[in-house]
Amino acid sequence: MRSKFDQELERLNEELIEMGNLIESRIEAAVSALVNQDVELATRVANGDKEVNDKERDIEDLCLKLILQQQPVARDLRLISSALKMITDMERIGDQAADISELTIRMANEKYFKELIDIPQMAEATIYMVRESINAFVNRDVDKAVEIIYYDDKVDKLFDMVKNELIEYIRDQKYSSEQSVDFILIAKYFERIGDHAQNIAEWVYYAITGEHFSWS
Amino acid sequence: MRSKFDQELERLNEELIEMGNLIESRIEAAVSALVNQDVELATRVANGDKEVNDKERDIEDLCLKLILQQQPVARDLRLISSALKMITDMERIGDQAADISELTIRMANEKYFKELIDIPQMAEATIYMVRESINAFVNRDVDKAVEIIYYDDKVDKLFDMVKNELIEYIRDQKYSSEQSVDFILIAKYFERIGDHAQNIAEWVYYAITGEHFSWS
Repeated sequence: MRSKFDQELERLNEELIEMGNLIESRIEAAVSALVNQDVELATRVANGDKEVNDKERDIEDLCLKLILQQQPVARDLRLISSALKMITDMERIGDQAADISELTIRMANEKYFKELIDIPQMAEATIYMVRESINAFVNRDVDKAVEIIYYDDKVDKLFDMVKNELIEYIRDQKYSSEQSVDFILIAKYFERIGDHAQNIAEWVYYAITGEHFSWS
Repeated sequence: MRSKFDQELERLNEELIEMGNLIESRIEAAVSALVNQDVELATRVANGDKEVNDKERDIEDLCLKLILQQQPVARDLRLISSALKMITDMERIGDQAADISELTIRMANEKYFKELIDIPQMAEATIYMVRESINAFVNRDVDKAVEIIYYDDKVDKLFDMVKNELIEYIRDQKYSSEQSVDFILIAKYFERIGDHAQNIAEWVYYAITGEHFSWS
């Protein structure tokens, strides 16, 4: 009985890693389409989160099966209920990638007024957060979870930088204000991705420690 | 057999109306919390889309059961598969309401630099769109669906007005640019709600006519 349960928990780990990979790919594709003004790729990201939704459904089914059949308690129950929370945040990240790509499509025929530097850094930071928070879950690594919770500061700071720079552009009237607003919106979506990745890490923290993370 | 199926389709209608009511309530609560700077209400909206998710799950289960047990064809199959698409857009609207409320919470201690007029109008328009697109589904009313598809223009125009006004504010430096940006983000979330409501109406059009709506 116990061994079957451990096998199923192992499958849960694998499914979460797969869903994490799908999410990372969506963030990567969204930022690549944005930087390269690649409408075809953006269209795929904007339309296609069926894979993510299907994976979310599979994991939910697996979690509910585990809860019903094995009636786990204490930490095992926490692991499963945290996984259910984690996938909700992962799915929301997939949605934000779609939102970014819709703006990419709309901006496809405009020349960007400068090379994008900070926004790709935001994307990179959030990809790291998603991957490492899932690794923290799989390895029951509470220190890593805490690192990722704090890592979101980096994304928030990047967002503030981008926002303030774009506010200056709007004031100067040197560049298109429309485009500045679009980039503020895009940066905001990446900032939200960071928030959801931070949520994932907080669920990992809870799964392992049994306590909700509190800022010290 | 047929009569049982009709009963189940009737239940699908009722469930969709209930989910629509939940979504409308979330938009109403989000805009009310925003206008009145009601942090308690905003917190409830930001945290609470469990009801919506549960309802989405119920409807999905019902749809899948109908497809598996009754093996519907043609229009009946289209009705059910359209319902599955509609609830995805409804769920996304619930998410946007949460995003709005998170900004409301962050702005809770700032005095707004002017009375909000256009944003509540955006909210009102999207609530109308959600309600009437679901009514169009229930009543198989293709004219109503088309009306709602075009109605989104109103939301888009309001968004452009709000955005342009706020861009002027940022240029003038008369008011806080931070607050202007926050209101642009909030207006954008309402505009996205309009997009999803329009999607719902397009699914209704498809369910009834068997053709995807094309702009003329």
